[in-house]
Amino acid sequence: MALAGSPGAKKGILERLDSGEVVVGDGSFLITLEKRGYVKAGLWTSEAVVEHPSAVRQLHMEFLRAGSNVMQTFTFSASEDKMESQWEAVNTAACDLAREVANKGDALVAGGICQTSLYKHHKDEARIKKLFRQQLEVFTRKNVDFLIAEYFEHAEEAVWAVEVLKEARKPVAATMCIGPEGDMHGVTPGECAVKLVKAGASIVGVNCRFGPCTSLKTMRLMKEGLWASGLKAHLMVQPLGFHMPDCGKGGFVDLPEYPFALEPRVATRWDIQKYAREAYNLGVRYIGGCCGFEPYHIRAIAEELAPERGFLPPSSDKHGSWGSGLNTHTKPWIRARARREYWENLLPASGRPFCPSLSKPDA
Amino acid sequence: MALAGSPGAKKGILERLDSGEVVVGDGSFLITLEKRGYVKAGLWTSEAVVEHPSAVRQLHMEFLRAGSNVMQTFTFSASEDKMESQWEAVNTAACDLAREVANKGDALVAGGICQTSLYKHHKDEARIKKLFRQQLEVFTRKNVDFLIAEYFEHAEEAVWAVEVLKEARKPVAATMCIGPEGDMHGVTPGECAVKLVKAGASIVGVNCRFGPCTSLKTMRLMKEGLWASGLKAHLMVQPLGFHMPDCGKGGFVDLPEYPFALEPRVATRWDIQKYAREAYNLGVRYIGGCCGFEPYHIRAIAEELAPERGFLPPSSDKHGSWGSGLNTHTKPWIRARARREYWENLLPASGRPFCPSLSKPDA
Amino acid sequence: MALAGSPGAKKGILERLDSGEVVVGDGSFLITLEKRGYVKAGLWTSEAVVEHPSAVRQLHMEFLRAGSNVMQTFTFSASEDKMESQWEAVNTAACDLAREVANKGDALVAGGICQTSLYKHHKDEARIKKLFRQQLEVFTRKNVDFLIAEYFEHAEEAVWAVEVLKEARKPVAATMCIGPEGDMHGVTPGECAVKLVKAGASIVGVNCRFGPCTSLKTMRLMKEGLWASGLKAHLMVQPLGFHMPDCGKGGFVDLPEYPFALEPRVATRWDIQKYAREAYNLGVRYIGGCCGFEPYHIRAIAEELAPERGFLPPSSDKHGSWGSGLNTHTKPWIRARARREYWENLLPASGRPFCPSLSKPDA
Amino acid sequence: MALAGSPGAKKGILERLDSGEVVVGDGSFLITLEKRGYVKAGLWTSEAVVEHPSAVRQLHMEFLRAGSNVMQTFTFSASEDKMESQWEAVNTAACDLAREVANKGDALVAGGICQTSLYKHHKDEARIKKLFRQQLEVFTRKNVDFLIAEYFEHAEEAVWAVEVLKEARKPVAATMCIGPEGDMHGVTPGECAVKLVKAGASIVGVNCRFGPCTSLKTMRLMKEGLWASGLKAHLMVQPLGFHMPDCGKGGFVDLPEYPFALEPRVATRWDIQKYAREAYNLGVRYIGGCCGFEPYHIRAIAEELAPERGFLPPSSDKHGSWGSGLNTHTKPWIRARARREYWENLLPASGRPFCPSLSKPDA
Repeated sequence: MALAGSPGAKKGILERLDSGEVVVGDGSFLITLEKRGYVKAGLWTSEAVVEHPSAVRQLHMEFLRAGSNVMQTFTFSASEDKMESQWEAVNTAACDLAREVANKGDALVAGGICQTSLYKHHKDEARIKKLFRQQLEVFTRKNVDFLIAEYFEHAEEAVWAVEVLKEARKPVAATMCIGPEGDMHGVTPGECAVKLVKAGASIVGVNCRFGPCTSLKTMRLMKEGLWASGLKAHLMVQPLGFHMPDCGKGGFVDLPEYPFALEPRVATRWDIQKYAREAYNLGVRYIGGCCGFEPYHIRAIAEELAPERGFLPPSSDKHGSWGSGLNTHTKPWIRARARREYWENLLPASGRPFCPSLSKPDA
Repeated sequence: MALAGSPGAKKGILERLDSGEVVVGDGSFLITLEKRGYVKAGLWTSEAVVEHPSAVRQLHMEFLRAGSNVMQTFTFSASEDKMESQWEAVNTAACDLAREVANKGDALVAGGICQTSLYKHHKDEARIKKLFRQQLEVFTRKNVDFLIAEYFEHAEEAVWAVEVLKEARKPVAATMCIGPEGDMHGVTPGECAVKLVKAGASIVGVNCRFGPCTSLKTMRLMKEGLWASGLKAHLMVQPLGFHMPDCGKGGFVDLPEYPFALEPRVATRWDIQKYAREAYNLGVRYIGGCCGFEPYHIRAIAEELAPERGFLPPSSDKHGSWGSGLNTHTKPWIRARARREYWENLLPASGRPFCPSLSKPDA
Repeated sequence: MALAGSPGAKKGILERLDSGEVVVGDGSFLITLEKRGYVKAGLWTSEAVVEHPSAVRQLHMEFLRAGSNVMQTFTFSASEDKMESQWEAVNTAACDLAREVANKGDALVAGGICQTSLYKHHKDEARIKKLFRQQLEVFTRKNVDFLIAEYFEHAEEAVWAVEVLKEARKPVAATMCIGPEGDMHGVTPGECAVKLVKAGASIVGVNCRFGPCTSLKTMRLMKEGLWASGLKAHLMVQPLGFHMPDCGKGGFVDLPEYPFALEPRVATRWDIQKYAREAYNLGVRYIGGCCGFEPYHIRAIAEELAPERGFLPPSSDKHGSWGSGLNTHTKPWIRARARREYWENLLPASGRPFCPSLSKPDA
Repeated sequence: MALAGSPGAKKGILERLDSGEVVVGDGSFLITLEKRGYVKAGLWTSEAVVEHPSAVRQLHMEFLRAGSNVMQTFTFSASEDKMESQWEAVNTAACDLAREVANKGDALVAGGICQTSLYKHHKDEARIKKLFRQQLEVFTRKNVDFLIAEYFEHAEEAVWAVEVLKEARKPVAATMCIGPEGDMHGVTPGECAVKLVKAGASIVGVNCRFGPCTSLKTMRLMKEGLWASGLKAHLMVQPLGFHMPDCGKGGFVDLPEYPFALEPRVATRWDIQKYAREAYNLGVRYIGGCCGFEPYHIRAIAEELAPERGFLPPSSDKHGSWGSGLNTHTKPWIRARARREYWENLLPASGRPFCPSLSKPDA
């Protein structure tokens, strides 16, 4: 199978999805750059784009090599309410970094906004929309390819975001950080999807807060909600790269391990291949990841869906499919691991016999 | 506490250790770069230094920011028997990258060699020493600050390596990839340490193959062996960043999860702080990590030992000690996690109720 | 607190429940006598009442001493379709044994019938009712105090059983072996409860197949169903003495451990005290157990509800409440376990690090 | 294979062992009768023999039916220091109960003594031997078939016990409650075995405090110790019926779950078959159990060793070998469990995802 990568004239996001192509999203920035030393947990802001641009560029590159078709600007929490005077420089630098790397492969640049800190305190639509519009102006000036409103826990605020983003006359994707129980006001996933599409989103789904399995349950509910309303939209999923069957309504932030002891929950590449296949079978075509999704997890999506896409991602030149790279090992019992059945059926141990397998959410 | 980093005239490795300073080692290259898409599992070779130098430079930078005092050349398995004609270019490029980053902070460059593929098949001392000597010539030409012979499973081959490295008249460190049961021929850790010191190593210890707890047990045996022989040497430990209480004599490669399902075993930063303290209390002063040790794990060593060293590492500007960065979170139950007792006592769940907590080694 | 036990003139089951008394049921016969060597797993029949009456008498005695107010005849699967010509002797002997022991304390005798083997193959109401009526004739002749129709997985057959039992003009209790998903034909727990009460049952609930937590969820649904229908009935619960959060609709028989590897799931006495309190708080007043409920589990119910009942069961003379019997131990760390907080908060280890914590049902 | 049970003229214990026969011991009295309501945890005394003789008789009967060749008098802690004036009545009644049941099958009566409460406080050999001699006088009067000194944590006191028991001119077995680390004074298992044999014991081994696997490790050390000393003796093992890989030197009493939350650790019958086979392969011929060994566990020993013994125990008439009793189940996935490979390879879940798999001993 050929390795992909050569750019050529790029198709737009809707052109791809409308034609049935799989779009591979990118992965984790905040959690990954926290572990690399460039993001502060608790704040979770993206000033690294100006402070340490090479670290951000490198991570974009890793996702590109792993097969991502989207370089999302690292502008999480980069609205003025959170970043104060830095906000414009951060959004600008983030666009430049994303574009620089996107140009090296078959990837689009998506400008991203997320929920504000204001909505919780008041629901002043005008003030909140103004924050979104500020970021949008940078994205427009930098001519990103499309827009993503992500990580919203209230459908109402997400709708406001979509309404603002639509002003730029570019395709808009919208994902909420909710689980099967719906948003914080009790709006079901199906209703959320309907509201977002009605507001103008062409692509809807969920990102963050829940593990792959739970997020796919939520996606199924969104899909059914759209179906029942007679609406059509592309589906998108970008879950956590963690196993989180024990989440409550609020998702992973309420689990006692958040954010500094999530290690034992990190998904293997094989878990992610299974997730990618299930997402595809559900009809989702924009498939990526959020916190905890490392470059090799994105590669696992691209490898699982290589038969559908027709090519492998660049970094598969450093990866034997299903462990085949072990087939020349000198120890026969390690060679015996160079096959799909082995890794598909392995139940990996935690190495932590004094720890439980599930936790109870704090709230 | 001040953040460290400004270089000044650098002290040599023995000058530091002789004066009682803690030397913080670096962490994982192979496993980490495999996940980033630049190393192929199974081969585990370091051609990334020529193919993707910016990816390697970035990882060096992360360790430097995390507090590492040593930039070890990424020359694992870079001897001619494994890399063929590429070997010289790889060793050269690796030295340049390590030096470039070391110059940005208070770090030394260490040239590293490891066991050959030949020893298993024959024990031709002359041929094996020739391989070591080839790499040493590059290290000498590039004027590395000191030398490390690491990842030896046979004391005899490690001794040969030390004997060659000593020819360069630079300080030599030697670490074996053994556990408390000793080398593959039954040489105990204490005897290994004695042999290495007698061969000329100034610093001895273990790296890789076993988790932090097990490696400290091995270090205790090495220390006792030296003591019993009346020999003196500095102690060095660079274990896996994984929980591996179930390893057999051969270490982690024999566990069924190796190398593609080790995720649930990854240590938290708090586990590593505990490890750093225990290593220090045991008298080890060169403390780093091997496979699985990400930059934030190295930072955890530097933070735990900040009282002894008098400063925090650069990347602590993005880390609140013991979770203190959570103390402004809007949810009170998350704010409640901003304290040492919380993280020290947390027993993190795996999120995998269908998996065991320990595995049986395949051999 | 006084120890109970002296009989006096006994109040009937409805007299007790109508006055708000707690009725403590009995526990496991089949699984417990299988482990003692008197019941064959797979057959699960009760011929021990004729083959080894002293073993059955002894178990009745243990439940009586533990605080049971009901000696249920050991007539599970003792209908003619399963026991052939033995059926009459078995039912007669079971009544005699139950009465003999009941006479030694404050316990009533309940004649018990369960689902037939016929219902699955055809739904011949007349033939099935005939089987029930045969057993009822023995119960009537032996003058049991009340009747229990238990372990029905189809509401329809349970209704037939209640209709037959009502012919004897004694109080009838009816429990189904269903979980929150309802009976095998999709009748919800609420609907099941309504049907049973309408058929004439004065006491309704669930027994067997699911663990304490799940059974209480089912009870809540039954209670809500009755409430919504404006019907009134006493509530009764007799769950498994096993932790079974991973059951599917079919309950524990579908879990891979059934029936010979359920050991790690056995509830502690403290788990059962918690269950008893929750059942009581839910409004259930007939509280007992089914498979896996050993005599000490029944004692735990009686001890937890001793404040409400005003007395402890006889076998509490051999049990210090909340571990208080340890307070004279010579080792201080064992003495430290002689308190409620200790046992309430203990998370007991399985001692099986190679095993998972949950299983997937086979169906 | 024939079911055993008819008595005939009984062979003595040494006659059996000398001829290479397997002797199946009995199981748990204290822990089992505690759960049945007749023994008080903390005290762990055996007054049930006078208070509730039918409960004790019933348990003896269950072990006899399960295949036990030894009815050990229920005289644990029945020396005068613990039972005061009751001691003589208890020892007498215990002998009568054991003899009554032994007469119903092919079992011998063994009089049992255990460590005193005095040894910890002083080491007055004369006073301690006097206590042993009191019990021995009852055993002699009641003409037990042989004698067992069990549950000694100090070799010295065990030797005193053997010396006293030898006065009766009956065979003496001696088992210590130690693990591989040896007795509380640091006497190794090998040395303990040698001391006991030199004192006159014909049968030596361990009982209680450690799980089957650990106890077999200790047995191996005892066997090697005897071998190295050129001594010969029969080997005997009666471990806990619990999985206890996490015990420290003091055994299960130091684990936090002791004694009221050990449920998740209970061995399955299949675990015990494995244990019986390993004990046999090690050369142990007196194989039984201690705390936690229920009648079906003893039956598992008898079934595993039926090929060697030539017969099945009586209660196998209620047990299909390796789950074969399930082969007529109506559900095909349950029928599929009616085979040896299924149960041998099953890894049973705990049903407790919030609990760890191992604990740390309190001391």
